[in-house]
Amino acid sequence: MLYAVIMAGGSGTRLWPLSRQNHPKQALRLVGERTMFQHAVDRLTPLFPSEQTLVVTRSEHAPILAAQVPELKPSNFIIEPEGRGTAPAIGLAAIHLQKRDPDAVMAVLTADHYITDTEEFRKALSASSLLAKEGHLVTLGIPPESPSTGFGYIQQGESLGNYGGLPTFRVERFIEKPDLEKATWMVESGGFAWNSGMFVWRVDRIMGEIQKQMPGLYAKLMELSAAIDKPEYEDVIKALWHKVEKQTIDYGVMESAEDVAVIPVNIGWTDIGSWRSLFNLLAVDQNRNSWTGPHIDLDTEDTLVINDKRLVATIGVKGMIIIDTGDALLVCPKEREQDVREIVKELKEKGKDNWL
Amino acid sequence: MLYAVIMAGGSGTRLWPLSRQNHPKQALRLVGERTMFQHAVDRLTPLFPSEQTLVVTRSEHAPILAAQVPELKPSNFIIEPEGRGTAPAIGLAAIHLQKRDPDAVMAVLTADHYITDTEEFRKALSASSLLAKEGHLVTLGIPPESPSTGFGYIQQGESLGNYGGLPTFRVERFIEKPDLEKATWMVESGGFAWNSGMFVWRVDRIMGEIQKQMPGLYAKLMELSAAIDKPEYEDVIKALWHKVEKQTIDYGVMESAEDVAVIPVNIGWTDIGSWRSLFNLLAVDQNRNSWTGPHIDLDTEDTLVINDKRLVATIGVKGMIIIDTGDALLVCPKEREQDVREIVKELKEKGKDNWL
Repeated sequence: MLYAVIMAGGSGTRLWPLSRQNHPKQALRLVGERTMFQHAVDRLTPLFPSEQTLVVTRSEHAPILAAQVPELKPSNFIIEPEGRGTAPAIGLAAIHLQKRDPDAVMAVLTADHYITDTEEFRKALSASSLLAKEGHLVTLGIPPESPSTGFGYIQQGESLGNYGGLPTFRVERFIEKPDLEKATWMVESGGFAWNSGMFVWRVDRIMGEIQKQMPGLYAKLMELSAAIDKPEYEDVIKALWHKVEKQTIDYGVMESAEDVAVIPVNIGWTDIGSWRSLFNLLAVDQNRNSWTGPHIDLDTEDTLVINDKRLVATIGVKGMIIIDTGDALLVCPKEREQDVREIVKELKEKGKDNWL
Repeated sequence: MLYAVIMAGGSGTRLWPLSRQNHPKQALRLVGERTMFQHAVDRLTPLFPSEQTLVVTRSEHAPILAAQVPELKPSNFIIEPEGRGTAPAIGLAAIHLQKRDPDAVMAVLTADHYITDTEEFRKALSASSLLAKEGHLVTLGIPPESPSTGFGYIQQGESLGNYGGLPTFRVERFIEKPDLEKATWMVESGGFAWNSGMFVWRVDRIMGEIQKQMPGLYAKLMELSAAIDKPEYEDVIKALWHKVEKQTIDYGVMESAEDVAVIPVNIGWTDIGSWRSLFNLLAVDQNRNSWTGPHIDLDTEDTLVINDKRLVATIGVKGMIIIDTGDALLVCPKEREQDVREIVKELKEKGKDNWL
């Protein structure tokens, strides 16, 4: 049976001040009337009944997300006491799935990406599950639109044939976030895809790789697995989870795993990692501005304004990001959007927790 | 006897969104801990006992201003049902003063100017009152620091001698707000001063000029004067004030009046007419930024931020004005500050009264 596991543990510091510790990116209405988490569930609904949709998230975020999708029951949520990176989160989901269904195929999906072609997305998941059933660790690759230095890349190797109507390939190698020169070379060469962070595999296969490559994590997962459905589970996870080494699934497992495959997918995928990537998705007026709440402007161009009830007035503003929330305001040129992270870092260092 | 008449009827649209219909510029804490109106009274206190200090303002603003200066009693306030320009406001103050003291000398002063050298200011008022007692209409002229096109100018004529230690001159002519070329010529020529809008004269003299030059206004003022201290006063002013023609004292009276004098004064005068003029007065950090409330920044220069409790975060912002109030936000480069007026105009046209 195919299960969806939505990874919803991140916080999204580059979307500050809208994204906060207690109001994470996944819970925000960034595109349209639905939150990122609701979009993530919506696009799975035709393929996965709710009992086959699991969500990995942190305890403080679970109630917020649960309230947004009432059809998901508490048993759909797998709670991490704290975020330890994608490798532990995926291992945690895998041991829970193994208990329910030792033959489970799990699709590791995200809540912080926006996908415009949801039909093609589901087709890609179906194709991936066919390949995964044969034992491959399948990654969804995004044909690169630009030499982005913000993503890892996957080099395609020999063809593994067509699955569900899509060509599939053995992975030659994973490339960590490159510099611009290397990225440009890869895009021009062809045969490289962005690593979307979406994977499909059999639980026994991924657990086998974790056992081989991350024995420390594997031992802890086994200890935890023995406690599933027992009264001591909460105490066990609390006692051991903070000792789990932080690691990504890419670095911890995928780069050295056997039988890794990639399916390049054209699904209209956007990583909403920052204000600029969101701006690219939103509808704009004739001056290329995107507005949310009440506003009035003179000579404003290429500017993203997100506000709620307060009036935002701009005069002669060009290429800016203006994020106006209840208790904080960000003003920043588009080009500096990556530095929002620095603001959050400084707030943390200064102990300004009420603005985090 | 010398009386101070503080003109506090304006609204200050170029200081939107801090300045509002029901929270006018005079009532704002723009420089230091005192409001503009409090500063205006403070600088008079050593020279004028409170019973000689009158305030002309609109009915909706009187309670706000009265609360800010408790030593002023209701009898100190002269209420205009609505603003009709400086000529009617001054005429209204004059008829009230005439009732109290037919020989009164009135100093027409402002609440929207900031004066750093208050001792020199009081010295100028004393000198002006000596000249005014002799029958002159005295204007305080500001030696121009730059060829500003935002002020009217006064051309000095022959000397009228020294009064109170200050040289005084007959006014050759008043020049309305000039273009840059003319302003530059005047500043380079010398012998021109900015028109500060502060005047000192005997009430009988100004009433005589109003009678001669603005007979329509004079007739209404006489009708009103007859009702002062009578129960029907409120009804009379309400019935006639909206019929009074809007006019400035400069255009309506001063440009054609007899015996007009000017005293150039060095009092550290600033017209806080707009955000930029305020910015010039405020203390700045090493990057020439002025901050009010909580803030965090990266690479921010030459920027004015006014906020209250919300955190303002700026990244890579240069030469901007950011005014963050409870219900509205303004973002505007310094160079565009005059266009704030256009925003207010558009809000008015669109009936967005809650933001006016």
